[in-house]
Amino acid sequence: MKTFQVIFQPSGRRGDIAEGKTIIDASRELGVGIESLCGGERNCGKCKVRLESGHLSPFTEEENEFIDEKERALGYRLACAAQIWSEALIFVPEESRIGRQVARKEATRRSMALKPAVSLYEVELPPPTLHNLLGDFDRLQKALRENYSLPPLEIDHLALLRLPSVLRQGRWKATATVWMDKEIIDIRPGKAAAIYGFAVDVGTTTVVAYLCHLQTGELIATEAIMNPQVIYGEDIMSRIAYTTNRPEGLETIHRSIIEGLNRLIETLTQQCRLRPEDILDVTVVGNTVMHHLFLKISPEFLGLSPFPPVIRRSFDVKARELGLTVHPSAKIHVLPVEAGFVGADNVGVLITEEPYHQDDRLLIIDIGTNGELVMGNRKKLMSASCATGPALEGAHIKYGMRAAPGAVERIQIDPRTWKVRFKVVGQDGWNDEIRNPEAKGICGSGIIDGVAELYRTGLIDKTGRFRKDIPTPRLKRSDGVPEFVIAWKEETSGGRDITISQQDVRNVQLAKGALYTGAKLLMKKMGIEELDRVVLAGAFGSYVDPQKALILGMFPDCNLNRISAVGNAAGDGARIALLNREKRIEADEMARRVEYLELTNEKDFQDEFINALALPHGRDPFPHLKGIVEEAILNPGKPLKI
Amino acid sequence: MKTFQVIFQPSGRRGDIAEGKTIIDASRELGVGIESLCGGERNCGKCKVRLESGHLSPFTEEENEFIDEKERALGYRLACAAQIWSEALIFVPEESRIGRQVARKEATRRSMALKPAVSLYEVELPPPTLHNLLGDFDRLQKALRENYSLPPLEIDHLALLRLPSVLRQGRWKATATVWMDKEIIDIRPGKAAAIYGFAVDVGTTTVVAYLCHLQTGELIATEAIMNPQVIYGEDIMSRIAYTTNRPEGLETIHRSIIEGLNRLIETLTQQCRLRPEDILDVTVVGNTVMHHLFLKISPEFLGLSPFPPVIRRSFDVKARELGLTVHPSAKIHVLPVEAGFVGADNVGVLITEEPYHQDDRLLIIDIGTNGELVMGNRKKLMSASCATGPALEGAHIKYGMRAAPGAVERIQIDPRTWKVRFKVVGQDGWNDEIRNPEAKGICGSGIIDGVAELYRTGLIDKTGRFRKDIPTPRLKRSDGVPEFVIAWKEETSGGRDITISQQDVRNVQLAKGALYTGAKLLMKKMGIEELDRVVLAGAFGSYVDPQKALILGMFPDCNLNRISAVGNAAGDGARIALLNREKRIEADEMARRVEYLELTNEKDFQDEFINALALPHGRDPFPHLKGIVEEAILNPGKPLKI
Repeated sequence: MKTFQVIFQPSGRRGDIAEGKTIIDASRELGVGIESLCGGERNCGKCKVRLESGHLSPFTEEENEFIDEKERALGYRLACAAQIWSEALIFVPEESRIGRQVARKEATRRSMALKPAVSLYEVELPPPTLHNLLGDFDRLQKALRENYSLPPLEIDHLALLRLPSVLRQGRWKATATVWMDKEIIDIRPGKAAAIYGFAVDVGTTTVVAYLCHLQTGELIATEAIMNPQVIYGEDIMSRIAYTTNRPEGLETIHRSIIEGLNRLIETLTQQCRLRPEDILDVTVVGNTVMHHLFLKISPEFLGLSPFPPVIRRSFDVKARELGLTVHPSAKIHVLPVEAGFVGADNVGVLITEEPYHQDDRLLIIDIGTNGELVMGNRKKLMSASCATGPALEGAHIKYGMRAAPGAVERIQIDPRTWKVRFKVVGQDGWNDEIRNPEAKGICGSGIIDGVAELYRTGLIDKTGRFRKDIPTPRLKRSDGVPEFVIAWKEETSGGRDITISQQDVRNVQLAKGALYTGAKLLMKKMGIEELDRVVLAGAFGSYVDPQKALILGMFPDCNLNRISAVGNAAGDGARIALLNREKRIEADEMARRVEYLELTNEKDFQDEFINALALPHGRDPFPHLKGIVEEAILNPGKPLKI
Repeated sequence: MKTFQVIFQPSGRRGDIAEGKTIIDASRELGVGIESLCGGERNCGKCKVRLESGHLSPFTEEENEFIDEKERALGYRLACAAQIWSEALIFVPEESRIGRQVARKEATRRSMALKPAVSLYEVELPPPTLHNLLGDFDRLQKALRENYSLPPLEIDHLALLRLPSVLRQGRWKATATVWMDKEIIDIRPGKAAAIYGFAVDVGTTTVVAYLCHLQTGELIATEAIMNPQVIYGEDIMSRIAYTTNRPEGLETIHRSIIEGLNRLIETLTQQCRLRPEDILDVTVVGNTVMHHLFLKISPEFLGLSPFPPVIRRSFDVKARELGLTVHPSAKIHVLPVEAGFVGADNVGVLITEEPYHQDDRLLIIDIGTNGELVMGNRKKLMSASCATGPALEGAHIKYGMRAAPGAVERIQIDPRTWKVRFKVVGQDGWNDEIRNPEAKGICGSGIIDGVAELYRTGLIDKTGRFRKDIPTPRLKRSDGVPEFVIAWKEETSGGRDITISQQDVRNVQLAKGALYTGAKLLMKKMGIEELDRVVLAGAFGSYVDPQKALILGMFPDCNLNRISAVGNAAGDGARIALLNREKRIEADEMARRVEYLELTNEKDFQDEFINALALPHGRDPFPHLKGIVEEAILNPGKPLKI
């Protein structure tokens, strides 16, 4: 029987599905929750999904009732009607998701200074007469100079083409949209209406977009999708390989992110009853490879030592040049990158956290598929990049999943009874407080909690190995590999025990070891003995429990009160740059100032890495864990020194 | 029998041709000379022509032998094989023209200061190392700053995409092409090669293009075509109407000039064994309507009082935005316009003649389908526009034709014998010095000569009426209308007498009356009693005999030694702006400074125009014609006072 790989977005769940199965069948096999009131009878219309790529069986008459022309053009189908005819990438819109996604994409509430790059200017012009023969543009320019002291401006070619009819339509009253006091990018008749901006964080795995009101700074909608490029490779190295191994590779992978963003633009503007043309400014952050692919720049040399980027400085490009379907004359501001592996996303974190204005010796960890570190204060800043892999995001973990409904996000283990309490995304209480916990898997914050608790309670030792002498049925073996049961099958929706396996622990150790090594080598290089503060950023940064992260040894010892999680600081940086043009200048300055440390060049790298694999560390002391870990391991019996 | 209108370029000859006739038959009917060694047997391949629009019979096998794939794609056909199946616009390339065109398009030799807007910078960059992690672009930028003191530069998106491979291909030696010290528009590996610029004068009827070497300033090729927009209207008002009356009108007429220019680019670069991508800068002049249509700006309001242009200031736009097939990152610099009817072509004349640097009270007349006047000196400059019509270009004249081989371009009439001497374009002597004069028609300079001579010799009177009492067989009637034979049928290639008719004289009077009126009203407005100097510009400006122009009264009296013809000064202006960026700034300043006078608003307009119809004028004295016209009219008998 022929099977095809099917991937569901935004959950990222994937698997091989037999040809001819319906999407809803596939979703059930893969544990993706799609609404279906009628039970697949094609008469409730609740199971609408959108085909992102691949072929399905032809559109049916029943689907016509629920899917209008416009949706059909966008690729919408009923999951109960459409059959899998090829490899397919399928997006489940929020309204079709069971329980809906408890988005981990909420933008952090921050107060942001408002000085957008794009401003509106209302003018009233004297109409042309035989004695006032200025051209329409020159007339507009003069009014902008006289009323607003604007310098001589350029005008976008498309805006110029619309100018004569707009001025007359508004009876010589018009509103000009001006970019950076340099170029008129839009002109509308009469008074000013609201204009909007679009800020995006293009992650290797997740793309988060924010729609903001440019005059008030208000965040009016936000949405996250899986980066559609995942079908061309899970990590940045495989994406680079895809572009270098195929003649059309770069074009394909570039188009894929642009089309993904265009769908996000469509979704976000529809939610707010706006049109894509109402978006007049765009800012983009992303790691260096995502940055290059977004701009259609070959990332080939980012994959070869010494990994130089093609452009570090920020770059402005017309939306229409890239085919981004916002206002065609809008400019896209792509934030600068720091180095081959420290990208514009890290610059976003920088301008959000502003370590360069602080005295505290700060460590910022941006946890994504790649971990990026910035260390320092107003005196000096250094950065490094660590290959953490996706384990901390819940991928490459036996029961790993994204932070979608059903994901275990918090774990507590009783050090005497080994009873496990857990909390599931989208459910209101702990598993012992609600009727049906229905766990589906474990997400990033859950796996960090889980491994930290396994260690705190002595279920695993300092090396990460499961201890065999602990009398609990939760400690079992699967194919000879030890694992620990987090949720009994009665507590799951899949009917199977959800566990953390020895391999999962190893993957977490590798990831946290890479982060620790990076931080340690930066401290050595900078002569820092102790960190004053640690900031955890990243898409799931706000969900990481700082104490658990410290127990794992994700970073060197630090006062627990001085460890904070700030959420998606990279995305916040994109929003800050969208709303405040001065932060764009700051970003360019700071990106230049941060010194990049290539960790693998450091002679201590191997030694530090091996020691960093242990929990929390092979030799470094963790005074701030006193009273937390010791106490736990004293209770069950055999003491384990830190 | 069905007929279709067929137009041949560049001659502009046109007529109705029966369906199914071959192009070569059509060319013979219309007097267009196409080479054909084999006599239409389809085996010499000399009669290649290019279909610009319309349908022809299908491509034949015989044509395959002479027309390669690339030519075929461009629309090339053998004129002896292809039949007319619809209205058609056919371009006869120079190599297929009988006798070849004696182009009146030679660029005036002027010394031009060389400071192009686009410059090449050779650099050698230190390759990236682990200790020098600048991005490719930032590395290039740094080298340009250090070696050439260039300010921070932008880079064109397409150039950025090519940057990484080019730098490595040239082993970190590269040449950057920089526009206006602002933007890197091209990057090539290794040392600098030659780069070229393209300057164009888009006339209502004729388009003249110049290909220049940007480093030496040398003019390396020039070519003229008929403006392909003529099929949408002969004059600017009908072109405006075409764009406003049809939904796709503006797009169609804009595409038509862009495609025409793209063919010119193809032709000129092929002639010089270059590629269109070698052209890295473009300048454009043209009257205001041509300017708007080139930029795809609606000319609607240029047709309505007070005729304001949409943009007066110069405008820079990427070639790829307009679809011009030079280097895609090249910028097009469109010179500023002065007013609705005084265009960028006049600005070209201005920066060529520089009246603003002179003390002489100067009148510059740019003769085209519209006449444009500039008057003044360093103290003050005014401009005006006159609706001359195309008579002075040889159109709307009974035997009028463009200045192509066979056109009578010089006429002398003996005041005693009324014997006519004439000189034909492409022939080496006067008609009485060579064996077969073979005149085909009369071009602009010929018609000016002819009417001036008719008047000087007393064959027509001051009012332009033919005198009936002169005993010469050359004075005859056709359909009751008097006409004067310039070439007897034995001296022509068409076998018919070539004459100047009463109607032709009237058309010349209307045209010259309009010019005179404009100049006179400008003098009144500026308080100028006498002109110090007159400059005749325009595509055929250099071929006008200043004395004959004065005899006609094309402009107020002036010392004959101070009347000069400068050729296509508008086109020269485009070349000057191509080669010297400082002249672009000067053009913007001067275009603003020139004050436009709307002639039809002047209360004396009608009165002045009626008096200006007489030869040379109804009442104004022409002291500088003393000894020229009087002497002539004394001889034949009846004196005619000026």
